[in-house]
Amino acid sequence: MKIPVVRNILEVNERIAAENRRIFSENKVLVLNLISSPGAGKTSLLEHTIDALHKEIRIGVIEGDIQSNIDAKRISKKGIPTVQINTDGACHLDGNMIRETLNSLNLESLDLLIIENVGNLVCPAEFDTGENHKIMLLSIPEGDDKPVKYPLIFRQSSVLLINKIDLLPYVDCDINKIKKLSYRINPNLTIFEVSCKTQEGLSQWYRWVKKKVNALARKKSQR
Amino acid sequence: MKIPVVRNILEVNERIAAENRRIFSENKVLVLNLISSPGAGKTSLLEHTIDALHKEIRIGVIEGDIQSNIDAKRISKKGIPTVQINTDGACHLDGNMIRETLNSLNLESLDLLIIENVGNLVCPAEFDTGENHKIMLLSIPEGDDKPVKYPLIFRQSSVLLINKIDLLPYVDCDINKIKKLSYRINPNLTIFEVSCKTQEGLSQWYRWVKKKVNALARKKSQR
Repeated sequence: MKIPVVRNILEVNERIAAENRRIFSENKVLVLNLISSPGAGKTSLLEHTIDALHKEIRIGVIEGDIQSNIDAKRISKKGIPTVQINTDGACHLDGNMIRETLNSLNLESLDLLIIENVGNLVCPAEFDTGENHKIMLLSIPEGDDKPVKYPLIFRQSSVLLINKIDLLPYVDCDINKIKKLSYRINPNLTIFEVSCKTQEGLSQWYRWVKKKVNALARKKSQR
Repeated sequence: MKIPVVRNILEVNERIAAENRRIFSENKVLVLNLISSPGAGKTSLLEHTIDALHKEIRIGVIEGDIQSNIDAKRISKKGIPTVQINTDGACHLDGNMIRETLNSLNLESLDLLIIENVGNLVCPAEFDTGENHKIMLLSIPEGDDKPVKYPLIFRQSSVLLINKIDLLPYVDCDINKIKKLSYRINPNLTIFEVSCKTQEGLSQWYRWVKKKVNALARKKSQR
């Protein structure tokens, strides 16, 4: 009896996410859904990405948290449009929650919308929000066995950022094993090795984002 | 419409968990439900705990994973009874999953049963398995803002193990802030600062486990 109910919730979500995707597409906004375990570095990545790109790209942010607005406060200091979603216990963002924020965001004035999901490597992978790409972070202290244990998010993501590589000397983690296991699950995955602390490797990530935003902008001018 | 459905699932779970709890109590087995984000160190803690206590205490383990049996293999090397639950996508263990393993475990021959939950700081907090205590791990690289962002698990747990304190010199994390925020949510929380890598602080944890197991054993002999 339980599975059909969950299936039903997922089907309703698919429908709402498809409608979100249509709205994002009409407005030529690139939407990235940022997913990781708690404390892997989503908000730090967001801060650096905003600093690096906000002069060329108009960025907006949706912050998803079970409770609190710590992250939204960090981000809104950057002076960009930020909306907080408090899920009030729920373990992921869904299409409907994103839909409800769209009145608070002027999509026409944005090139890039980044959704920071609830810190959870499992449930956000199942719920489409209407994004163009799921972007996942895995941090070095989490260890090198995560692709095998949480395969869905590795399969669903376009980009894997392996973060906190500055900690490699101090932990037992084989970065080549992470990459090998990840490619086995998802051969199309783009992998960047980065440190939000030292900023090593981040420029490749910025280039990826700019390329994707520019591809949408080109389509816009061709209309 | 969604909330009543979830509520119903939780109510069914409460009933099954209560029945599990009765079975555990009849068999005088102490049951600990180990919860953390992916990679915070649950399996390492288990390995050390087994090494330290298996000569005095008869230990069994239930390993919860979405997929794979990496952790169960690590644990069964210790020569103790281990059962693997693969949740096949589900983000937490529930009362029913635990119930189904009980035929594979001879509870009468155990003093301590440790359940290693799916790596997830959110959902396992909501689903009672019938354990005596929820034990949570938070690792230093996850940062010091987690109690505010994931309060439910801090509220539900009897013990918080702050793990990977060997990494304190290399990350921005204020351990006193974690403790202050945690006590604000749950003044009864017992907090241990540990490193599964260097084994610093683990003896206090072992003492806590032994005390709880012995309290049950005393009750047994008083019957």
